[in-house]
Amino acid sequence: MHKQRYLGKDPLAMELYEIMSSFPILSPHGHVSSEMLAANRPFTNAVDLLITPDHYVTRMLHSHGITYDQLGIPKITGTTSSVSAREVWAIFAANWHLFLGTPSRVWISETFTEIFGISEELTPDRADYFFDAIGEKLAQPEFLPLALFRKFNIEVLATTDATSDSLVSHKKLATLDFGGKVLPTFRPDDVSDPSRPDWKEKIAQLATVSGIATDTFDGLLNALRRQRAFFKEMGATATDHGVFSPQTVALSASESEVLFKSLMSGNASAEDSTKFTAVMLLEHAKMAADDGLVMQLHPGSLRNYDYEIAKNYGTDRGMDIPVATTYTRELRDLLNAVGKHPNFRMVLFTLDESTYSRELAPLAGVYPSLRLGPPWWFHDSLNGMQRWRDSVTETAGYYNTVGFIDDTRAFTSIPVRHDVARRFDSAYLAAQVSQDRLSKSAAIELAPQIAYHLSKDFFKL
Amino acid sequence: MHKQRYLGKDPLAMELYEIMSSFPILSPHGHVSSEMLAANRPFTNAVDLLITPDHYVTRMLHSHGITYDQLGIPKITGTTSSVSAREVWAIFAANWHLFLGTPSRVWISETFTEIFGISEELTPDRADYFFDAIGEKLAQPEFLPLALFRKFNIEVLATTDATSDSLVSHKKLATLDFGGKVLPTFRPDDVSDPSRPDWKEKIAQLATVSGIATDTFDGLLNALRRQRAFFKEMGATATDHGVFSPQTVALSASESEVLFKSLMSGNASAEDSTKFTAVMLLEHAKMAADDGLVMQLHPGSLRNYDYEIAKNYGTDRGMDIPVATTYTRELRDLLNAVGKHPNFRMVLFTLDESTYSRELAPLAGVYPSLRLGPPWWFHDSLNGMQRWRDSVTETAGYYNTVGFIDDTRAFTSIPVRHDVARRFDSAYLAAQVSQDRLSKSAAIELAPQIAYHLSKDFFKL
Amino acid sequence: MHKQRYLGKDPLAMELYEIMSSFPILSPHGHVSSEMLAANRPFTNAVDLLITPDHYVTRMLHSHGITYDQLGIPKITGTTSSVSAREVWAIFAANWHLFLGTPSRVWISETFTEIFGISEELTPDRADYFFDAIGEKLAQPEFLPLALFRKFNIEVLATTDATSDSLVSHKKLATLDFGGKVLPTFRPDDVSDPSRPDWKEKIAQLATVSGIATDTFDGLLNALRRQRAFFKEMGATATDHGVFSPQTVALSASESEVLFKSLMSGNASAEDSTKFTAVMLLEHAKMAADDGLVMQLHPGSLRNYDYEIAKNYGTDRGMDIPVATTYTRELRDLLNAVGKHPNFRMVLFTLDESTYSRELAPLAGVYPSLRLGPPWWFHDSLNGMQRWRDSVTETAGYYNTVGFIDDTRAFTSIPVRHDVARRFDSAYLAAQVSQDRLSKSAAIELAPQIAYHLSKDFFKL
Repeated sequence: MHKQRYLGKDPLAMELYEIMSSFPILSPHGHVSSEMLAANRPFTNAVDLLITPDHYVTRMLHSHGITYDQLGIPKITGTTSSVSAREVWAIFAANWHLFLGTPSRVWISETFTEIFGISEELTPDRADYFFDAIGEKLAQPEFLPLALFRKFNIEVLATTDATSDSLVSHKKLATLDFGGKVLPTFRPDDVSDPSRPDWKEKIAQLATVSGIATDTFDGLLNALRRQRAFFKEMGATATDHGVFSPQTVALSASESEVLFKSLMSGNASAEDSTKFTAVMLLEHAKMAADDGLVMQLHPGSLRNYDYEIAKNYGTDRGMDIPVATTYTRELRDLLNAVGKHPNFRMVLFTLDESTYSRELAPLAGVYPSLRLGPPWWFHDSLNGMQRWRDSVTETAGYYNTVGFIDDTRAFTSIPVRHDVARRFDSAYLAAQVSQDRLSKSAAIELAPQIAYHLSKDFFKL
Repeated sequence: MHKQRYLGKDPLAMELYEIMSSFPILSPHGHVSSEMLAANRPFTNAVDLLITPDHYVTRMLHSHGITYDQLGIPKITGTTSSVSAREVWAIFAANWHLFLGTPSRVWISETFTEIFGISEELTPDRADYFFDAIGEKLAQPEFLPLALFRKFNIEVLATTDATSDSLVSHKKLATLDFGGKVLPTFRPDDVSDPSRPDWKEKIAQLATVSGIATDTFDGLLNALRRQRAFFKEMGATATDHGVFSPQTVALSASESEVLFKSLMSGNASAEDSTKFTAVMLLEHAKMAADDGLVMQLHPGSLRNYDYEIAKNYGTDRGMDIPVATTYTRELRDLLNAVGKHPNFRMVLFTLDESTYSRELAPLAGVYPSLRLGPPWWFHDSLNGMQRWRDSVTETAGYYNTVGFIDDTRAFTSIPVRHDVARRFDSAYLAAQVSQDRLSKSAAIELAPQIAYHLSKDFFKL
Repeated sequence: MHKQRYLGKDPLAMELYEIMSSFPILSPHGHVSSEMLAANRPFTNAVDLLITPDHYVTRMLHSHGITYDQLGIPKITGTTSSVSAREVWAIFAANWHLFLGTPSRVWISETFTEIFGISEELTPDRADYFFDAIGEKLAQPEFLPLALFRKFNIEVLATTDATSDSLVSHKKLATLDFGGKVLPTFRPDDVSDPSRPDWKEKIAQLATVSGIATDTFDGLLNALRRQRAFFKEMGATATDHGVFSPQTVALSASESEVLFKSLMSGNASAEDSTKFTAVMLLEHAKMAADDGLVMQLHPGSLRNYDYEIAKNYGTDRGMDIPVATTYTRELRDLLNAVGKHPNFRMVLFTLDESTYSRELAPLAGVYPSLRLGPPWWFHDSLNGMQRWRDSVTETAGYYNTVGFIDDTRAFTSIPVRHDVARRFDSAYLAAQVSQDRLSKSAAIELAPQIAYHLSKDFFKL
C-alpha cells in the first residue's frame, strides 16, 4: 500500500489528508460489541475477527455457492459446523478474487498491512501464512481490544443498544482508561414495530426495566422517556431508528391510545402495525426535541429476505436487501412538528441513492434540524462517496452533512474505514479546487470540519 | 475569477466558449418581474437585490437556524421585521461558508466580480464594504434595470404570468428600446388545480377578463383559448405548467363537463381534483397543437411543505421539496393525442434525475414534439449539468434538447448563470472530443446550437 | 478511427484491449434472424441492412419529424411506401447530425470503417457515394451473412425464439460450417401473458407442437417442459423473459389451476392476468432448476407506447418506453424458491439504472444463482457502461456479472458493439489501476474473464 493511495497526484490532496489524519476518530454510529470491549479478551483468530461477523464478506462468498455451514457460521439452534477456522480461512483465500473492486477488499487489505503488518498480497497459497501471522499477533497484549482502541486513536465510539439494555458493559468501560469513550445509543426498534414476533415481550421488558407500566400508550411513552434519560445519563447523545420506511404520522393522544390498545389486544391489521411504527417515529422526534438526543434514521432495508437463512442463521447475515425509499411525503408530519425546533436534531441516511439530490439534499438544505449522514452500508465505498458528495453538496453544502460514519461490526476495520474516507475526501476537495469550484483556503477550512468538527458538534460528542 | 474558470486546460474548451459567449442571451423561461423592468427604478440595496428574493439563499441560511424574520422577509400579514438591510447582509456574510460547493456561491461570487467589479472575497469582516460598494453602484444610472438588460446582452427574456394577467407592464415594455424583448408566458395553473383555495375565484376572474362565461367546461376552454390568443398577441410563444404530477387523462367532452360541474358544485373528491388537473393538461396540449404556443412542463415539487412558513411568509420561500416523479404512463394519453402533431411542441423538465435516462430521453428520442429542458432548479449546477448531459445525450442526442434556461427570480444572476452554463458546455464538448466521442468539427457545429439556436428555433423566439 | 479510440492514453488500457480482442465473440442474447443466416442470401442495400431494421435509428429520425412512411417502413397491412432505398439513405445522411453523441453513431461509423472500409465521414453530399459503396460490397461473396459470421470471429450466437418455433433454420445451420454456432433461446412470453390478444391461440399452438394438451395448468407446464427440452436438444442453453414487471408469485398447484381456468374462460380480471404472468415466471424458474436452462429476465419496458405506430407499423419500432421498475419485493418468492438451488441460474437486466446499486447488486452479491447482465438497450453505451460498472462493482464485484451482450437485430453491428465494449472495459480497468483500486495483475486477470469466460461459464456456451 503506497502512501498516496486514493489521493491521486495533486499535492493538495496529500496536504489535506495530513490535516484530516491528524484528528482522532469519532465513530458516532456502529455495531461494535461493548461486551467484547469490556471483556478485553484476545481475539481468537483471523476468521472470528474478519470473516464470520462480517456480513459483507460472508454474503460475497455465499454468492459463489459457499454455504454458511461451510463458513462455520453457527446455526440458531446452536449447532456449529465441524469446519475449522483454518479451513474457512482457506476458503476465503481461495475466493479472494471475488472481492476485486469491492470496499471489503480495500478494508481487509489495509487491515493486513496497516494493522497486522503483512506486506504480501493474499493468495490461496499464502492462506496458512496469513492465518498464522494474524493469529500470532492476536495473542500479543497490544492486540487486545482496548489496546487496539488506544492505538486506533478513537476519541468516541458509539455502540447500538436495545431499548431495555442494562448497559452493564458501558458502566464497566466508563471506569477504564483506554484513551477514549464508549457511548451507548438508544435503539427502540423492538418496541416500535408490532410486526416483530417479540414485540409484546419487549413492551413488557421495558416496563420491568423502567419501572413504569406500559399497558397504555401514555405509559409506553413515559417508560421510553425514562430509558432515554437512563441512556443519556450513561453518556448517550443519540438514538437510532432502523425502520423499514421513514413514514411518520401525527396522531392525537387519544387516537394513539386506541391504536396501541388495538395492537396489544391482537385485533389490529398489518396497516395498523405500520401506522404505529410511523406514530412512534414522530413521538421519538418530539421526545428528542425535549431531551436533546440526536435522532438517526436508517430506513429502506427489507430485512431477512431469505427465509431459510433467517430461520437457520438469524439476522444480519447479508440477507437484507434495499428497496426504493422516499422521504418527502413521509417526513412531512415529523418536520412540521419539530423540524424547526431549536433543540431537535436528526441525521438522515438512505440505501436509495436516487433520493440524494431529489429529496435528502433539498430537505437538509432548508431544515435547521437536519443533517445528511454519509453514504451508508452498500454505498460506503469510493464510488458511493463520490456519488454522495456529487449529489448532495450543490444543494445542501458541506455544512449540512456530518462526518464519516463507519457503522461497522468489524472492530479492526474502524481505522481503515475512516482512513479510506479521509483519503477520499482529501482527493475530492483537491479536485474541487483544481476544477475552480473551491478555493484552496476553503478546502483547508473544510478538511477539519469533515474529519472531525461536523460530527463532534452535531452529535454533541 | 480567472478567465479559464470551469473550462479546464484543454484549449478547445476556450475556443468553444468564445463561440458560445459571442451569442446574445435567450431566456425563454424565468420569473423576473415585468413590473420591475417596466418601472425601471433603481434597486435599493444588496439585500433586496440578492438575498430576500432568492429562495436558494434564504433556504440555506434557514438550514442553519437563521429565521426568515431575522432575514427581514415580510410576513403575509404585512408585518415587516425591524431588521435593517445592513444587518441582514452581515448575517449573510457571516454565513457565506455555508454556500461552499453550491451554485449560489458561484452565481453570487460572479455577480460580485462581473457585475459589481468587486475583486475581493466576501468575508464577515468585509460585510459593510460589500454592502456599501454594491449600494453605490446600484444608485448609478447604468445599474437601472433596463440599462442592465442592455448590458447583459439579453435578446429575449420571457416572464411567467397568471391566466388573467393584464400584461400591462409588457405593454409598456413593448414601447421602450432597451436592446431586447420581454415576452409573457401563459401559466394557467391557477384555474387548472381545483385544490387551490382560490380556484373558483380564478375561474370567475378568467370569465371577467376574457368576456366568456366559465360556468361550463366548454366555456372554460373557450375563455382559455381567448387568453392564450391574447398572450400570443402580446408576444408570448409559450405556456408553462407547474403541476404536481405530469399525469394526463383523456376524457370525452361530456365526461369533462360532468367532472367540472361536480368540482364547481363542491361535491367532488380529492381524486376528482387531481383528475381535473390531468384533464386540463391534455386540453392545453390540444390547444397548443392549435395555436402553436410551446408547452413547458415543470412537475414534481411538493409546494409549501412547511405549513408555518407558508402561512407566515407565503409561497416560493425555499420550502418546495421534490418527490419521486414518473412520466411514461402519465404522458401516454397526451402523447397519443398530439405527440406526433406537426404543430405541437413540448419541453419536459424534472426534479427527479432518475427519469433522465429511464423515461425522458427515451420519450424525447422518438416523439417529434418533445424536447428536453436543461437541468432545473436544484439541478441547475455544474454536477447537475454533467449528470443531465451524461444521462440524456446517448439516447436523445443533442438536438432533442433546448439550450440553457435560467428560471431565475434574481435578475442580475441571468448573465452569470448563462455564462456558467456556457463554460460547462464548452468543457463538456471538449471532453467529448478528447474521449473520441465527438469530432472537433462536430463540437464546433454544436456550440452555437447549444448557446443559441436550439432555444431560438424550438421556442420560436 | 484511430486505433486507441475510447482507450485514453494509459498504455495499460491498450495492453488490456489486446488481451480482450484476442478472444472470439460470445453473443448469448440477441435478435439476429436465424432465417437470414440459414438462407445466406446477399443483403440488398445499406438501408435494408442498417436503417429499416434498427429501431435505434428509425426512432431518432422520427424524433425530428421524419415519418415511418418516409423511411419506407412497411405497414402491417402490407402496403409499402413508394420511397426508394436511395431516398431513405439520403434522408439518413441529411440527419446524421442528430446522432452526435449517441451509440448508434459510434456503431454505424465503425461499421462504415471497419466492415465496409469507407474512411470518409458521412455527410449529406456523400449520401450516394456511401449507398453505392456499401451496395457494391454487399454484392460480394465475402459479405454473405455466413461469410461475415466467420469473419466476425463469432464463436456462439444465440437467437431469440418463440415458444412453438420449429427451429427449422437452426436445424439447417447446425449442418453448415461457418466457424461458429447459432443457438436458439426459448422465449415463452407469448403463452405467459394472458393480456396478449393472441394468448389463447399461442396456448393452442403449444399443444399442437408439443403434442401435450394445454387445457389445464398442469398440461401447460408439461407442454412447456417438452418445448424447453426440445430447445435444449437443439442447443439452447437459456430462456428469455421479456416481462413488463419482474413480479413473481408462488401459488399452490390448485390455485394456479383455478387461475388458469378462469383466464381461459375469459372471466378474469386484469389483475388475474398480471398474476398469471408472475406465476409463470416462478414456474419457469422451477423448470430451470430442473433442466438447467439459464433464465434471462428483461423487464421494465412499456411496449407499443404509441397506439398508431403499433397499429400501422407493428412492434419493435422504437416505441417501447421504460418505466420505473423494482426487483427486491418482486423476486422474493422466486429467490426463496430456487435462489440457492445449485442448478438454477438467472441473469438480471434492467432499464431502470436506479436499481443497479439499490437492488440488483445487493441481490447478485448474495444469491449464488444470480448474475447481473450488462447495461441493456438504451443503456448500452459508453456512459451507460460507466454508470453500470461504477454502480454494481463495489457490491457485486466483477465475478457476479456476465460479459457483454449485444442484444442486437443489426447483424453487422455485432463485432463493433463487442469491440466498443471491450475498449470501454479495458479503459475502465486501466483507470481502476491508476486510481489504486485494482492491481495491474488483477486487471490482467479480469480482462479475459470479462471478454470471454464469465459468459462462457455462466451461459454454458
